[in-house]
Parts: sequence; structure tokens; C-alpha cells
Amino acid sequence: MPAEPQLARWLQRVEARLESELPRGDQSPERLHQAMRHAVLGGGKRLRPMLVYAAGCATGADETLLDAPAAAVELVHAYSLVHDDLPAMDDDDLRRGRPTVHVAFDEATAILAGDALQALAFAALAREDRAGAGLRVAWLLALADAAGARGMCGGQALDMDGTGATLPLPELERLHALKTGALIRAAVRLGALAGDADAATLARLDEFAAALGLAFQIRDDILDIEASSEQLGKTAGKDQAQAKSTYPALLGRDGAAAALAAQVERMDAALAGLPGDLAPLRALATMAVERSH
Amino acid sequence: MPAEPQLARWLQRVEARLESELPRGDQSPERLHQAMRHAVLGGGKRLRPMLVYAAGCATGADETLLDAPAAAVELVHAYSLVHDDLPAMDDDDLRRGRPTVHVAFDEATAILAGDALQALAFAALAREDRAGAGLRVAWLLALADAAGARGMCGGQALDMDGTGATLPLPELERLHALKTGALIRAAVRLGALAGDADAATLARLDEFAAALGLAFQIRDDILDIEASSEQLGKTAGKDQAQAKSTYPALLGRDGAAAALAAQVERMDAALAGLPGDLAPLRALATMAVERSH
Repeated sequence: MPAEPQLARWLQRVEARLESELPRGDQSPERLHQAMRHAVLGGGKRLRPMLVYAAGCATGADETLLDAPAAAVELVHAYSLVHDDLPAMDDDDLRRGRPTVHVAFDEATAILAGDALQALAFAALAREDRAGAGLRVAWLLALADAAGARGMCGGQALDMDGTGATLPLPELERLHALKTGALIRAAVRLGALAGDADAATLARLDEFAAALGLAFQIRDDILDIEASSEQLGKTAGKDQAQAKSTYPALLGRDGAAAALAAQVERMDAALAGLPGDLAPLRALATMAVERSH
Repeated sequence: MPAEPQLARWLQRVEARLESELPRGDQSPERLHQAMRHAVLGGGKRLRPMLVYAAGCATGADETLLDAPAAAVELVHAYSLVHDDLPAMDDDDLRRGRPTVHVAFDEATAILAGDALQALAFAALAREDRAGAGLRVAWLLALADAAGARGMCGGQALDMDGTGATLPLPELERLHALKTGALIRAAVRLGALAGDADAATLARLDEFAAALGLAFQIRDDILDIEASSEQLGKTAGKDQAQAKSTYPALLGRDGAAAALAAQVERMDAALAGLPGDLAPLRALATMAVERSH
């Protein structure tokens, strides 16, 4: 069965759930609520929510159980972009082809909107009463650990510390394993937990997700030097301008392409022989590796 | 039984738990971890953790169940101070008598440390396996709602919007009900949930907490005009300098004192006739109202 119709349906599901989780823009404090909506509802690939659904599909989860974790992981991702774009961090004016939150609103509102989106992610999981309390706790722990100092925030801290310096490859990999990898792995884990996957399956899917996260980042680095800002919907060439370590800078263009191919092989190996419908996971992996923006 | 020995023991408990929840300062990313520790371990009254223990005591909770929610609520409070002190927000250099996080470290680290502390609060609750999954979910939901756009973040947004304007009293009360009240109410609720309190008791304790939150804020406003920076451990006179609405500004000094007395009566009425050991809750209320810093 081709995965595309499923992905389109899941996209509709998560957009509807995000819309219903977010506070209304016409209720006080309006400016904060509008900033939260601007941050989340501005499009985006929704890779992480799709991974929740795809991992749930691979492990036989009830699809209605997947909306809350799909929305929650995207809320965390969206908040991290708002904060990463701030002047004190990456100082970016453009995101998904639109002004970033601190440009469209102001810095204080951007900080608070990010903070409130993080809280909303956890509230969305805790409130999902179609899921048993045990599943909700497992979701909440996976997401909180992935978002924190030993996950996404830690990776962004390493990224800030490493700006202007040339990181050796192992340190660059660790940076990305935390900064983007932790949340991608959490997305897959949330879906597989909803499918009540056993420890062996969780480990195989986690290996897949770790490779996908790295592949995604290598592709990002390649796109940053090859694509235009218009294609990316964000400022191109930022890595070089900010003297950040990247795969092409460390390995050359061909070396970066080879590193990407190695992660694709690692993904294939991780999924080989797993039962369940793996087509959506494979389709997402292909999209992440071949995307042009 | 006088409450003071209990409060001293609880203070030790929560300090130990905070210390063990925080990442070590000598592990990568060191700068982020050190900033998180600076934000949390710099003293403070620990009013919110004490309220968790006191509400647990009032409802017969097992004391060992209270360490995680006590630490979690303080982690959320500490993160909110780090972000509120940022240049784009209240722009404060001094907190608890020490440099604020963005001064001691830098702005990017302060933003990330706050973000990571919020995630850590939820992780600490989700990981507490002495509590059943149902209790953990109830805790997580109460804390996430209190921290978010309809709670603390929403109150801070109203505060930023209202700076420079004279708010009418009902709007000022709503601002404080969200900005400081939501988390104080959450602290009491977390403790009472651990004591498996019934709905009627939860409602009475919530009424107590709402009054305490307002009393705390009125006292804060009075102290801001009466005390020195040295006494407060933070910059005094900030409200006036930033043209923020306050109780003394709206009601005069005597009017503010009368408003404070009204909240004290409301607290007494809420607790009247409740079973359980209410001495610690009463002691904390007195401390909040009579404090000099």
C-alpha cells in the first residue's frame, strides 16, 4: 500500500489537533495567544508528528491514540524554533517563509509564547484520557527527557558554544544527536509506546530514528549551502555566515553525501525483518533524505 | 505542634531533591548545567515547595511522595524568574542577592537554562515511581496548566502588556491570579492530590491558595516601595520605575494594607473546620503576609 494517502490523512489529523490544543487568538491575553498560533500554525513539514503516526502504524497502535503525542511533539519543536530564532540565539528573521515570532510580535512575547507552548505540549499529553495513565506517564517522561538539558536544550547549548569553532566530527554528531536527534527519537518512541511495542522493537525503531535524525541534519547542512532562502523558507547560508561546523565543511560535499548514504543504510538495517506496516516510516525516511527544503 | 521544625525538615528535603534532579555542573554541556544550578540553588524562600508539603500534611499524604512535586513546582518557579529577568522582559540584574542568570552567564544560556528547567520539572514528576501513574498524570496536568498560557505565562504576558498603563483593580487582580496565583494554587493542589483529598477539600484548599497568592502579591507590592534592594535581594522600586500598576498605587498604602487584611480573612475562612494538621499551612500564610523580603 502506498504511504502517501495515509500521510495526507495524518497531516489533517495533526493540524486539527494542533488547532484545538492552541488557545483562541481572540481571548485574553490575545497577543500571547496569537504569537503561539503564529509559531505553530505557519505550516512546516510536520516530520515529527508524521513519525509518531508512522511508528504507531508500524506497531499496530490505535490511530486515535496518536493525535495527542503527534501534537505534543510538534508543540515542543515549534517552541524550540521560536527560541532558537531569538536575537540572543541564532537571530533569524525568517522561518517557514514568514517573519519569526519576535519580528512579527516582539522579543518578550516570543520568549513567553515559547514557554507557554512547551507547557501546552505536556498538558496535551496529560489530558489525553483515551490513553491509560501508564501510557501517558511513559509519553510524558520520553518527551520531557528529549526536550531537556540532556536532549534538545543541551544540543542547542552545544551549538551556541561551538559557533565560530571547528568541531571534530564526533562532537558535531553529539551536538546533532541532542539538538535534533533527541526529539525525532522521541517522536518514534511516542508512537511505538502507543502501539505497546516490546523492548526489542522499541530498540530497533530507536536505532532507525537515531539514523534518521542524523540523515535529516546532514541533508539540512547540504541544503544550507545549495538551496536559496526562497526554497528553504528560512535564511540560506546561515551556517557559513555564523561559522558553524557542518558536515560539508568537515567532510566536503562528497564526504557529506557519503555520510548521508551511510545513515540511509543504517535505517534500512534497523527496519529489516520487523513485522508491521513499515511503508510510512520508509516513505518519511526517503522524504527527509531527498527533500529540497 | 509548632510548624517550624517541620518546615525546616521540609526545606532540607526539597533542597536535597533539587540537588539530585539538577544535572551535574561538571558534565557537558557544562555552561548550561551550571546556569541551571545557579538559577535553582541560589536560595530563595521555597514558598511553593513548602506549600506542597503543608498541603500534603493537611491531607495526610505520605511525606516521601511530596519531594517530587515540591521540586517540580520550584523548578517551574525558578525557570520563570530566569526568563522574567531577561533584558527583553523585566531586565533585572539582581535576584536573591546575586547576579541574574543572563548577567552571570549570557542571554542565550539564560533562555536555554529556563527552557531546560521547565522540561526537568515535568520529567521529575513523570519519573517519580513511588507515585502511581494516575497520581503522576494528575500532578502533571495541574502543573502544566498552571505554567501555561492560561496560567503563569499568560499572567506575565498581561504584565508586559500592562507596563506603563494604569490597570483597573479587577484587571490587576486577574494579572496576579495568573502570574503568581496559578503556580501557588498548583503547589497546594499537588500536595493535596498526594493526600488523595476529596473534591470538597481540594476546593477549600484552592480557595485558601488563591487568597494566599493575592496576599503574597499585595505584600510584594508594599515591600517594593518600602524595603531596600539589600533587604529584598532584588532591585527595589522597580514597579514605580517601570510604571507598573500596583496595589499601593491604585489603593494607597492604607488601602493596600486593608486589601491584604481581607485576603488574610479569606484564608482563615477557607481553612475553618477542615480536618487534618493545618498548622504548617497557617504558618506559611503568616510568613507570606508578614515577611520583610
